[in-house]
Amino acid sequence: MRKIAFLGTGIMGAPMARNVLASGIAVAAWNRSAVKAQALEEDGATVAASPASAASGAEAAVCMLTGPEAVDAVLFGAEGVFSAAAPPPIVVNMSTVPPDYSRALAARVGERGATLVDAPVSGSLKPAIDGQLVILASGPEGAIDAVEPAFAAMGKKTVRCGDAGAGSAMKMMINLLLAVCMGGMAEAVHMGRRCGLSTEAMLDVILSGAVACKLFELKAPMFRSGEFPPQFPLKHMLKDMRFILRTADEAGAPAPAGHAAFQLLRQAAGMGLADNDFAATFEALAARADRD
Amino acid sequence: MRKIAFLGTGIMGAPMARNVLASGIAVAAWNRSAVKAQALEEDGATVAASPASAASGAEAAVCMLTGPEAVDAVLFGAEGVFSAAAPPPIVVNMSTVPPDYSRALAARVGERGATLVDAPVSGSLKPAIDGQLVILASGPEGAIDAVEPAFAAMGKKTVRCGDAGAGSAMKMMINLLLAVCMGGMAEAVHMGRRCGLSTEAMLDVILSGAVACKLFELKAPMFRSGEFPPQFPLKHMLKDMRFILRTADEAGAPAPAGHAAFQLLRQAAGMGLADNDFAATFEALAARADRD
Amino acid sequence: MRKIAFLGTGIMGAPMARNVLASGIAVAAWNRSAVKAQALEEDGATVAASPASAASGAEAAVCMLTGPEAVDAVLFGAEGVFSAAAPPPIVVNMSTVPPDYSRALAARVGERGATLVDAPVSGSLKPAIDGQLVILASGPEGAIDAVEPAFAAMGKKTVRCGDAGAGSAMKMMINLLLAVCMGGMAEAVHMGRRCGLSTEAMLDVILSGAVACKLFELKAPMFRSGEFPPQFPLKHMLKDMRFILRTADEAGAPAPAGHAAFQLLRQAAGMGLADNDFAATFEALAARADRD
Amino acid sequence: MRKIAFLGTGIMGAPMARNVLASGIAVAAWNRSAVKAQALEEDGATVAASPASAASGAEAAVCMLTGPEAVDAVLFGAEGVFSAAAPPPIVVNMSTVPPDYSRALAARVGERGATLVDAPVSGSLKPAIDGQLVILASGPEGAIDAVEPAFAAMGKKTVRCGDAGAGSAMKMMINLLLAVCMGGMAEAVHMGRRCGLSTEAMLDVILSGAVACKLFELKAPMFRSGEFPPQFPLKHMLKDMRFILRTADEAGAPAPAGHAAFQLLRQAAGMGLADNDFAATFEALAARADRD
Repeated sequence: MRKIAFLGTGIMGAPMARNVLASGIAVAAWNRSAVKAQALEEDGATVAASPASAASGAEAAVCMLTGPEAVDAVLFGAEGVFSAAAPPPIVVNMSTVPPDYSRALAARVGERGATLVDAPVSGSLKPAIDGQLVILASGPEGAIDAVEPAFAAMGKKTVRCGDAGAGSAMKMMINLLLAVCMGGMAEAVHMGRRCGLSTEAMLDVILSGAVACKLFELKAPMFRSGEFPPQFPLKHMLKDMRFILRTADEAGAPAPAGHAAFQLLRQAAGMGLADNDFAATFEALAARADRD
Repeated sequence: MRKIAFLGTGIMGAPMARNVLASGIAVAAWNRSAVKAQALEEDGATVAASPASAASGAEAAVCMLTGPEAVDAVLFGAEGVFSAAAPPPIVVNMSTVPPDYSRALAARVGERGATLVDAPVSGSLKPAIDGQLVILASGPEGAIDAVEPAFAAMGKKTVRCGDAGAGSAMKMMINLLLAVCMGGMAEAVHMGRRCGLSTEAMLDVILSGAVACKLFELKAPMFRSGEFPPQFPLKHMLKDMRFILRTADEAGAPAPAGHAAFQLLRQAAGMGLADNDFAATFEALAARADRD
Repeated sequence: MRKIAFLGTGIMGAPMARNVLASGIAVAAWNRSAVKAQALEEDGATVAASPASAASGAEAAVCMLTGPEAVDAVLFGAEGVFSAAAPPPIVVNMSTVPPDYSRALAARVGERGATLVDAPVSGSLKPAIDGQLVILASGPEGAIDAVEPAFAAMGKKTVRCGDAGAGSAMKMMINLLLAVCMGGMAEAVHMGRRCGLSTEAMLDVILSGAVACKLFELKAPMFRSGEFPPQFPLKHMLKDMRFILRTADEAGAPAPAGHAAFQLLRQAAGMGLADNDFAATFEALAARADRD
Repeated sequence: MRKIAFLGTGIMGAPMARNVLASGIAVAAWNRSAVKAQALEEDGATVAASPASAASGAEAAVCMLTGPEAVDAVLFGAEGVFSAAAPPPIVVNMSTVPPDYSRALAARVGERGATLVDAPVSGSLKPAIDGQLVILASGPEGAIDAVEPAFAAMGKKTVRCGDAGAGSAMKMMINLLLAVCMGGMAEAVHMGRRCGLSTEAMLDVILSGAVACKLFELKAPMFRSGEFPPQFPLKHMLKDMRFILRTADEAGAPAPAGHAAFQLLRQAAGMGLADNDFAATFEALAARADRD
């Protein structure tokens, strides 16, 4: 690949774009609030005034946006990618969206003569910075092959999931698991604390056992300090859970643990914790605790 | 330490006793069905005809039994440990029991002039064989110090949790987390499969991401094969969940994910899967699936 | 009122239209499958070939349809109400739809110069036949006043709920309560039966106590016989629950009992019971029962 | 019957004893805090200094106490019923206890040469005053026949449920249904209010529809006023729910709505509402609401 458009250079998009640049692929960056795109100039990116302008002459337009509405606007809006004179032949959507949206998007992109690669990612800020994301790629094999150099720059692995929509479904799957495990940690630590156990001893046991994982390592300091600075903001997980539960319902899949997690996320958001890390459901549990 | 009594040499107890023997500590073994104790003779254990006989002259009596009823019988029954002429000064209960039982047990053991170390373990068969358990020890520091050589033979680490009861509470905490994470994997893989994802691709994503852990590695072959041979039998997790939810209730701790897991475990047991691994809640989800 | 169009003369719509006719108001009836409209001819209705034709010259167009898609088609489609030369000044939507749909519908109807009365009903087949429905009316007071003669023919009471959308919200509220109470009866009777109680004795106790209500009277024969012939088909309640839970989520209202009911409805649908009465969640409970 | 001992003359027991007195049966009353028994003197009761003294010469000892511990103390404790020189031949336990306790109690009473009638009641304060309770009687038919005159004084109906334990199981069944319906009303009204509906309109719809029942009539003023003065204290329902869920678990009966209700009751108790009416779970829902 020689050049891509990178549309959406926020918390995740910026380090992903940097890794693409570092691999020798040119990047035309655009972001809704331009200052975040301009920060990439020192890494060698060209800053574009619109998605259309970023996409002109690119081999692929990569979207890393907040959800379906933003993707719609960036691709199909005024000054969107498809308003360009020569839109790129491939659109790569790496934003988290529901599978049914991705399937419809593949058709809409196809109607405009281009091909959609539906490719959300597993991994948050640190793997994004380290180029260690897992790319959940779906769509025509040839299109995925074509953008694989960019994927290789951003991730440690590309898992091919099937037709467009499958990558988004895979993202629903892994984020459901993430939400349930995180909720489990919060629930277990909360119970232990009410039984009089020290947080430090609990973290020691958790991180020495069969469920020890990067997620629990990352969140351990939050349980120690009682502060939940956002790594993965609770409001984003809440948004994702809405997609996940809709997907589960459409697939006919029961999701009792997902529902339990969702209700705690909602409660935590209602307590004003939406901008905290999603581990802050711990506080929602505390608010439900029976002290009688 | 020179000699301990090991009471209960079943699936977990036998390899634990072997590791104690291998460390140079003599073991007098007893098991309700004697044949399981006799299997340890070739490892150098003495086989005793009763808990009382095993405990005579031992520095500590270690229990690794199925639950409160068995512990009661082995300690306080006819031919139980405390019917011995000279019962050991320390009783180490490594069986999974609820914290309130452990607290009461400490008092009952104390009334008989001995000291209870409440020390269940985190880890199942493989770490038991490898001497890599985590020992969740609680009780008087001096008593824990006294039995630490045996703990060091069985585990990679002893986490000191507090007074008697705290070790059992820690076990409730870690098994709650285990049950929720396992349930999360089953729920996520089930949803993914109904969305058309391949199991292999899902396992690849799970084991490459932030929640990758030994538990999910161990269970991956079950999801591949659809067979759930027992590593941790579902019926044992179901029993543990009853202790856990009672503990949560007494501690005033909400446990919504635990309740969701419990209900699936019960359903799976009702489907005849009690002797399968606890990952078999996957089948209970499938039985709830909405195919309409 | 002299004349209304009645669009949708199915299980509920037909008896409602008959009561309107009986009150002396002329009815032009239309139904997607025409035979159901023709059945009203002997009651004095005129049968129309299209919604547009039914609506011509009517003072109001009343919709009693399966949901948003059907309402959209009947009002705004080809040959829809608003394709008529002189569409009626008032549209009364009595179909069950989510409140946000109703609010948007009010705007869309307004753009076409007409006024929406959002007026779903509380009550099922028997009160529909008996003219004993409760009309959950919302929208401009003047428009409700104008159609009150038709409401009076169909119902025993009109509850004025507020602006358009409020009637639909009220319907969500009452159907949530209906679903939870029905689920409670199924859960309680199921538990009792597993405790060895006779169904007859349980029904006697239920119908003699503080929760005795028409709903439980109506369903009692189903629990006696184990047959669940549809009074309110499970699939319709399942559809309604999707609207209800979406409404709850948008309103920021937790709905734990609603979620529990929803999951049982889904499971029952997956068991092939979608065409049974919604009391058939009893069977889903039985399928979850722990017989181990 | 000529004479009974009435043990426990609290909120429920006092009016029940009054109705027995009014029917012409003599009552020897005892209550832990004696002043509540003395209040019955003006109704013609004899006040006894102990359960044993009350029971002397009575044809039956009726218990209306707070639970298993109180029943144990009153029957088997020092100065308990069975410490009397001539204990009565029949013990009628009308307290709410779990079925397994009742079955064991039948055996223990039998060992002392007496017969247990396990007969809790459906209905709270008002029906107790009005003699309109439903008596959930179980045990030997002859014993029930013998005490039927007292039951007829207290209740409008005696439902014979089976052997001892069955009455308690019936009580679990009806209180599960009560808890779920109450929770449903709270959940529905809460959702409706967040959708902007007026409480008055909602109560109108609820009390005009298929689920209209005495329970909802009784609670309506609480939703109007936002005050939850105890008719059935939340802490009592919480205690009952523990019995109910244990019964459900032992019977192998899933109770998802019961679990949801239980968790809200616990949260409400944790919020300091334990002495309010159990309708106060409404406040727990509000505390979970997502305002973000």
